[in-house]
Formats: sequence, C-alpha cells, structure tokens
Amino acid sequence: MADDLYQKGIAKIQELTASPDENPTGEMDIGAAFKDIAPDLEKYVVEFAFGGIYSRPGLDNKQKVLATITALVAQGKPQIKMHIKTGLTVGLTPEEIVGCIMHLLPYTGFPSVINALSVAKEVFAEQGLTVDTTGVV
Amino acid sequence: MADDLYQKGIAKIQELTASPDENPTGEMDIGAAFKDIAPDLEKYVVEFAFGGIYSRPGLDNKQKVLATITALVAQGKPQIKMHIKTGLTVGLTPEEIVGCIMHLLPYTGFPSVINALSVAKEVFAEQGLTVDTTGVV
Amino acid sequence: MADDLYQKGIAKIQELTASPDENPTGEMDIGAAFKDIAPDLEKYVVEFAFGGIYSRPGLDNKQKVLATITALVAQGKPQIKMHIKTGLTVGLTPEEIVGCIMHLLPYTGFPSVINALSVAKEVFAEQGLTVDTTGVV
Amino acid sequence: MADDLYQKGIAKIQELTASPDENPTGEMDIGAAFKDIAPDLEKYVVEFAFGGIYSRPGLDNKQKVLATITALVAQGKPQIKMHIKTGLTVGLTPEEIVGCIMHLLPYTGFPSVINALSVAKEVFAEQGLTVDTTGVV
Amino acid sequence: MADDLYQKGIAKIQELTASPDENPTGEMDIGAAFKDIAPDLEKYVVEFAFGGIYSRPGLDNKQKVLATITALVAQGKPQIKMHIKTGLTVGLTPEEIVGCIMHLLPYTGFPSVINALSVAKEVFAEQGLTVDTTGVV
Amino acid sequence: MADDLYQKGIAKIQELTASPDENPTGEMDIGAAFKDIAPDLEKYVVEFAFGGIYSRPGLDNKQKVLATITALVAQGKPQIKMHIKTGLTVGLTPEEIVGCIMHLLPYTGFPSVINALSVAKEVFAEQGLTVDTTGVV
Repeated sequence: MADDLYQKGIAKIQELTASPDENPTGEMDIGAAFKDIAPDLEKYVVEFAFGGIYSRPGLDNKQKVLATITALVAQGKPQIKMHIKTGLTVGLTPEEIVGCIMHLLPYTGFPSVINALSVAKEVFAEQGLTVDTTGVV
Repeated sequence: MADDLYQKGIAKIQELTASPDENPTGEMDIGAAFKDIAPDLEKYVVEFAFGGIYSRPGLDNKQKVLATITALVAQGKPQIKMHIKTGLTVGLTPEEIVGCIMHLLPYTGFPSVINALSVAKEVFAEQGLTVDTTGVV
Repeated sequence: MADDLYQKGIAKIQELTASPDENPTGEMDIGAAFKDIAPDLEKYVVEFAFGGIYSRPGLDNKQKVLATITALVAQGKPQIKMHIKTGLTVGLTPEEIVGCIMHLLPYTGFPSVINALSVAKEVFAEQGLTVDTTGVV
Repeated sequence: MADDLYQKGIAKIQELTASPDENPTGEMDIGAAFKDIAPDLEKYVVEFAFGGIYSRPGLDNKQKVLATITALVAQGKPQIKMHIKTGLTVGLTPEEIVGCIMHLLPYTGFPSVINALSVAKEVFAEQGLTVDTTGVV
Repeated sequence: MADDLYQKGIAKIQELTASPDENPTGEMDIGAAFKDIAPDLEKYVVEFAFGGIYSRPGLDNKQKVLATITALVAQGKPQIKMHIKTGLTVGLTPEEIVGCIMHLLPYTGFPSVINALSVAKEVFAEQGLTVDTTGVV
Repeated sequence: MADDLYQKGIAKIQELTASPDENPTGEMDIGAAFKDIAPDLEKYVVEFAFGGIYSRPGLDNKQKVLATITALVAQGKPQIKMHIKTGLTVGLTPEEIVGCIMHLLPYTGFPSVINALSVAKEVFAEQGLTVDTTGVV
C-alpha cells in the first residue's frame, strides 16, 4: 500500500540519517520547505526515492551513497554536502569519500573534483574528522 | 620513476581486465589507436589514470568501477560499455551493476538510466549472464 | 493503493499514446525490454512518471510534453523522438513542436537545436506532416 | 531593417516585462551592465533573442517562457529567477510554474528540481503569491 | 541592413569554408535541410552566427574555430567534425587541433577527449594529413 | 623522472602566473588547501596538468588558456575567474578574452555567456583594465 511505502521510505531515511529518536523524519526532510507550493514533492522523495530506489536490493547503503556522491560531483550540484554527511552516517570513511571524489579526476576533470573536495573538507571540519592519507603518494 | 609508474599502470589495467597472459596490455589499451596523432595519450591513460588514480588507496576496485560507471551514466558517455565489462572482471555482480544504474533514477532521470540499462543488457547477453531479481519489487 | 496507481499510470500512457485498443500498454512501454534485468523499472515508469508526475494538475498534456521535449533538447537525449510522437498525439501541432525547439536557440545553442530539428523532420516525414511556416521571417 | 528589428525586440521585452511606462527598456535589460566590455551583447539580446526568437510564431508567450524555464532547470542556470518573474508577467499561474518544474523530476532528477523550486518559492514570496495545491496528491 | 548582414554572413562562411567558386554558399549551409520546417534557421545561422558572432573583432578565425572545437568537445556534440574541417580551412594545423583536444583532458576528462580524437583522426585520414608529434613526450 | 616532472610543472605554473619571485609556487597552488585530505591532488595538478598537458607542444600558452576559458564557460565552473587572470598574465588582451566568451553565444547560449562576462568584468575592474570596443557593432 502507498501508506506502507511512505513508512518504508521514512524508515530508510532514518537509517541513512542515523537518529530515529532525535531526528525522526531525518535530516533529509524537505517536505516542510515545499509543502505550500508542491506538497507532493515530499511524497516523491519519501516514497519513490527512499521507499523505492534507496530500498532496492543490489547495492548496500555505502555503495548507494557513493553512487549518489559521484552523480552529484559529475553534475556539480550543491546537494553533495548533505550526501557526504549521509555517507558518513552509513559508515563510509572519510578516506572512501575522498577516494571516490579523487577517482573522478579522469572522468569529470579537475574543477568538479576540487569543488567537491572543498565541500568534503568543510564537512570533515564540522565533524572533527581527519583523513588517513597513509599510502597516498 | 616515470618508468615504474608506467609499469604500475599496466599492472593495474591487467588487474582490471583480468588476463595478463592472453590480454597482456589490457582490453583498455587505447594507445595503439592514437599513437600517430597523440602518442602521449597512452602515457596519460596508463600513468595518470591507472598508475595514479586507479592505484590510489581509499576505494577498492569494485568501488572504483562503480564510481566510474556512475560518472559515465551521468555524462551519457559510450565508454560505459567498456567499464561495465571491467566491473564484471573485478567482481561486481550483474545485480550490483544494475543496482548502481537504477540507483541513479532520482539523480540523472529516466532517459540516462534507460540508455545505460540497454548497454548493460547487451553486455550481459554477450557474456551469457543473468540477473537475479529476487527481492526487486 | 499501489495497484490503483499502476492503473492510473497505464491510463495516462494510453492517453498520451492514443490507441487503447490497438496499443493497450502504450507505445512507451519499456517494461518488456528490461523485465529480466530490472523488473521494477516498468513500475517506476508507470507509477512514478505517468501515474504520478504526468497525472499532476498544473499543466495540461500539451504543456507537459513541451516541457519534456525541451528537457530532452537541453540534454541531447535520443528519447526526444518518442516524445515528439507523443506530442503529436496529445495535440501539439508541428508548428508548436518546431517553435519549441527553435525557441531554445538562445538557451542551448545551435548544435542542440539542429540535432533536435533533424529528429522532428524525420518524425514529420514518417507521419506525412507538413509545417505551416506562414509568418516565419 | 536592423533598426526595426531592435524596436521589435524592445517591444517584445516590454510585452514580457509588462510596464512600458515604468520599465521602458524592460527588466531584462542587460545592455547597461556590459556596454563597456561587449556593447554588442545588448544588440544580440534585443535583436536576435527577443526581436527574432521570442517574436517567432508557433508558440505563445506562455509556452515560450515555460520552455525557457525548463531549459534553465535542466542547465541549473541562475537566470531562472528572472524568467519565473517573466512567466508571471505573461500570465503563467504559480500552479503552471510549479507544475512545469515538478514535471521535470523524471528527466532532470530531484536536485535540479529542488533547486528550482527554492527559487520559485522565493519569487512567490516576494510577490505575495500563493499556490493552489488542490488536486495535488 | 538585414540584407547586408546576410551577405556578410555568407562571406564569412565562404571565408571559413575556403572555396567561393566551387562552394558558393559554404559547406556549412544547413538552410536547405530545414527550410521546409524552420526556414528562419538559415537566417539565424547566416546572420547571427556568421554575420554577427564570427565577424566580431577580438579573436582571429583560428582562435574562433579553436573556441568552437573546445565548446563542442565539452558538450560532446557531433558538429565537431564539421568544425575540425573548418579549422583546417582557416589554417589551424593538425598539431593545433590535436593540441586543443588534448589540452582539455584536465577539464572535460578522458572520455570526451578520446571521442573527439577519434573524429579528428577520421578527418585527418580523409584529407591525407599526418600529425607531427615531435616534442610530444 | 617524477621529480623532474614536478619541477617542470612548477615552472609552467610560474610561467602562467608571472612572478617567480613574489609568487614562487604560483597563484594556482591548490596543494596547501587539500594536503590534509588529498595530498596527491597537488601532485596531479602540478605533474599531470601543468608538467604534462600545459607543457605539451601544439598550442601556445595563449591558445591553451583560451581553450581552458572556453571549457569553463561551457561547464559553468567558478574556476573561470582564476583562468581569466592567467590569460591576462600570458598576454591575452581583454579584447581576446571578451571575444572568446562572446564567440560562445551560438554554442552555449546566452546565460553561460552572460555569467562569464560578469566574471571577466569583475577581473578587469580589479586590474584597472578597459576593453577596446572599436569595431564592435
């Protein structure tokens, strides 16, 4: 049922944003912002994107967020900040996030990568995280 | 040394293309095609892309190829076919490849995803692979 | 209910592709092509894209297809052919379709427009349609 | 004559920006900003874009602005704000503008749509407009 | 006058396509192809693009075609083939054309560059041209 | 040797940024910003981009920076500001920089060009430069 799908989506958002008690609808809740002009946007985010696509088998959460981050680097979208945070929540290490962005140098070119690294650096600073660069030569 | 870097790149290409004996310079060798007009292209592919970026720590080979496939879906580039093959070589399952492409629906839209699924379907057919769709609802 | 949403999507596809008797699942049916590798793609096309987005109030069918064609010109996607046909089905005139593509010259540049006009010309030829160019100077 | 074309373009800009008395060269006048570095830019905007393309038959003003908004959503350009205002001037309702942006979800993905909705919401707030969401489910 | 502008555009096209006697309207004439569906396209190509933009001071013809080729590599447009030919006509050497495409590796990534090099290689072969790769390391 | 390549890259950056004494590692040094999260980024910028690509034969420095600026206009990247400055350093005139950006009108459309002209105008103002618009009609 659609109602079940909505609950499935909310549960997935909570899983990706980590704190069902303190953050029950998830950091990614964008329904409130647009409910007066496009009240169905929240439904599509929750039901289609999270209840559907993010709940698909095939990839685990870490792989899904890496794919999301990659797409956002390629497109230069500001949503990358939110998804770097989500990546940390689902267990991606800072090394994996930086590794993903750096991996795109031959595909998206330097400007896209540098812009994304700036955002990652900002998120890591906000969360007091450091990057282990052992083996990076 | 640069010479070491070239060897490191060739070794990484072989690792990604699986058959050092039968395919010693790798399926991805594009040096021959352009050596008369841009002989340094091969060097940059081997040394920068594979000796450097693909040899970076942070992500494993499977994650790297998933990021590559994602970038190529977002950009609509024909190189996706070669990299779907590489993904299968490094151990990505057909389910992971399809899962990655389908995951991009909310980020790149349907046309990019459908075009990429057509290529994946073609590669799977060429290699006699099937996709386990258990749990896909 | 999800089942209702699926029926709503199928009805919308039929409305856009015009012949419920001869073409009961619509010309746009892409479920069959991918049901062995991504059986849920059809569901998302039918339920999300057509049962949801294409069934939204706000724009009429002609406006929706014009927006679709515009997005596909801007992105250079081959799906533009199918949607030019859909546009004709919902009542867009050849003049409106050409007018839409030509209008994009200052926004997407000449190459994207010329590529799209080639497709439009091909569809018009297939359907024996001519374009009234009265007033075009 | 070129002079006639310039006047035709100015008239079209006034038509799109609504107030020939208070805003005689139109809100879209960008000639002043660049006349010291590229004085011909204004000519191309007025004569080619507005005297030519925006004055073409085929689409009415509302359709033209919807196509413009769609292209700018697909490209992520900041000019969308100016064209949402123009859309309101030529008679697009807030429901049509939101409908157009929401329609792009399956084509450009969620981030582009959400970024554009934020701009629309800002313009509606500036002009004291509300969106009738009756029938949006 | 508009008529003068048309003649100016035709003259510029001839200058870029080299043979006013044998090819009086230029290799780039696309008016014939679309005159039945968008007869004004030819006018905009001739008057705006060639009579206006290509006739601007600031850059010489070689620089203008290099900028065109660069934009088409970045966008992945098939028109790059025609403009590589135009570049050769206005005096760009094969080394400059390859140099321009290779220069884009850090900005557009490898796939775009490789696709463009394939087209350049094809044009050079058609015209019996070789590339001097002295100094390429 | 790699060490030589690094020095070659640094020398090229200095050549492009003009002041080996006051600005010994060049204005383009981005190594410091990311050395804690991706210390190899600086290496790739210096060795691959500047020691390799920018040191290639085929194009001169002015042509290389024009190609860079063109790619960044087409992609809408903020790095265009830095490269307009580099262009001025290697001897591009303000007229050539504006000429390059204006030339892209038929390829990237007006919004990309207008956004880039705004940046050029800002750089020219910072450096007290004026643009000779003689012959611009």
